[in-house]
Amino acid sequence: MDISVLGCGRWGTFLAWYANKIGHNVMLWGRENSRNFIGLQETRKNDYLTLSKDIELSMSLEKAISYAEMIIISISAQELRSFAKQLSRLSKMQRKTFILCMKGLEASSGKRLSQVFGEEIGKTANIAVWVGPGHVQDFVNDIPNCMVIGSENIEVTKKIVQELNSDLIRFYYGQDLIGNEIGAAAKNVMGIAAGMLDGLNNSSLKGSLMARGTREISRLVRAMGGNDVTVYGLSHLGDFEATLFSDSHNRKFGQGFIQGERFEKLAEGVSTVTALKELSTHYDIQLPICNAVYEIIFNNNDPKETLKDLFLRPVKFEF
Amino acid sequence: MDISVLGCGRWGTFLAWYANKIGHNVMLWGRENSRNFIGLQETRKNDYLTLSKDIELSMSLEKAISYAEMIIISISAQELRSFAKQLSRLSKMQRKTFILCMKGLEASSGKRLSQVFGEEIGKTANIAVWVGPGHVQDFVNDIPNCMVIGSENIEVTKKIVQELNSDLIRFYYGQDLIGNEIGAAAKNVMGIAAGMLDGLNNSSLKGSLMARGTREISRLVRAMGGNDVTVYGLSHLGDFEATLFSDSHNRKFGQGFIQGERFEKLAEGVSTVTALKELSTHYDIQLPICNAVYEIIFNNNDPKETLKDLFLRPVKFEF
Repeated sequence: MDISVLGCGRWGTFLAWYANKIGHNVMLWGRENSRNFIGLQETRKNDYLTLSKDIELSMSLEKAISYAEMIIISISAQELRSFAKQLSRLSKMQRKTFILCMKGLEASSGKRLSQVFGEEIGKTANIAVWVGPGHVQDFVNDIPNCMVIGSENIEVTKKIVQELNSDLIRFYYGQDLIGNEIGAAAKNVMGIAAGMLDGLNNSSLKGSLMARGTREISRLVRAMGGNDVTVYGLSHLGDFEATLFSDSHNRKFGQGFIQGERFEKLAEGVSTVTALKELSTHYDIQLPICNAVYEIIFNNNDPKETLKDLFLRPVKFEF
Repeated sequence: MDISVLGCGRWGTFLAWYANKIGHNVMLWGRENSRNFIGLQETRKNDYLTLSKDIELSMSLEKAISYAEMIIISISAQELRSFAKQLSRLSKMQRKTFILCMKGLEASSGKRLSQVFGEEIGKTANIAVWVGPGHVQDFVNDIPNCMVIGSENIEVTKKIVQELNSDLIRFYYGQDLIGNEIGAAAKNVMGIAAGMLDGLNNSSLKGSLMARGTREISRLVRAMGGNDVTVYGLSHLGDFEATLFSDSHNRKFGQGFIQGERFEKLAEGVSTVTALKELSTHYDIQLPICNAVYEIIFNNNDPKETLKDLFLRPVKFEF
């Protein structure tokens, strides 16, 4: 089928590569002044892969939307609302299926990305999310992984999986959009916490971080109306290898923060932890690990003391 | 108080060191012909630590039992039954509290270690388990962690935690002996699977392994009468950093197995996977990951094909 991918960063470009590889006609959209897009136009390459000549590159959003029935979006999470506003002004937006392939929450509101997107483009389109583990550098070397597609309509979910499933990416049907979106976003906060533990030479506390971290996000998801086991699936726990134990941007950000490095660009988990702070208050659910990360980043709390207090709180029951 | 530690391997010797460090009188028992014991007698050192002169070393089981009210056991899991038989013949075994600080299941029967121990010594003693994450090399360098004490009697659990808790090891009360024992044992099988993925250059599938592995063990624990969330706590998931992402014996065994290495000594997970195979049949619960590890080790199944099939099975629901 015809598929458009909006966004030509590392992940968006991979998605175009992947959709083409498994037999679809693909158009990849990028901003005119994007360095990534200019590079792809010139060489059809980035640091990870080479795009087939069959993939059309376009700077016209209108063209990219009218090209395909299925549209994958991979841009910065915090820019999704303004991007969706821009899309909503285009014609031919009805009856499209949009797949959000990004992990985050709107920092200012705590809203999930499918909510943000739906608010801006209206309910006439199908909205799904694509989350779970996987490294671009592995996929392009034919190392497979399992991921999740979720939406509020199981028929939409099944249709997307049918089109995108392959031996390289095996999809599970997500049945809890709240749990999958909160879980996918929150794992970046756990990634920052893991990096801070690494930076403090307390990497062995990443085990406790995994056990306690999943637990607090599970409680939040339940309070929000989701299923409390979802975070133990691919979208959250299943993404911990990539986020807590690899060179992920969020883990490196946490480690660098401890080591006093300055960053040109904040990690997505920084926006997410702001959103989670909001959700913690709104739903009256304690999120001790998220709160510790927030206090360290935004209120100059001492990382060593804060994290030590966190894991060495008074004796109690585990669940 | 007076505490005896039976077993002077790496972990047992650390437990004696720890109990002494937090203020208890400690006797450490080892077998007369044990190389570890002879080394400790000669130098009071092993590769990780130096024992204080206050710690008594003894080769007499009778002496070690009569010395203390609280007795910590750390020997090979598969030797526990014969060891317990030996203990049961001693006098003064009543009203003692035994803490099993080991992770495994009896390979021949699938029984939990507290069951095995209870069957042999009778019900007049208290039996508890001590599980969860922690590296000896970290603890002796003052890097803290969280662990779990569990038993069938919460007052016994609380008493043990009161005596053993410190800023170095923060204990949670385990409330599900089945879940904690099965979880602690099964994490070694996940460690072997992780090592196999590492050996196959598929380390990024360790994320999916964590999500799918916890899930199958959770189902087993529920079928056995335990709580299905226990495995997401410290005893199983909380031990994944140490077992799936560090130089654990089980992870290295799995990796070496793929790379064709021969082993002098099998990893504990090899016995555990035999026990889990038995439990899978008995409780009629599918354990796809455990089963794959079993087939690779015992039936010469091709690791690459078996593990690929495992993670790339037909599309389906996650939970």
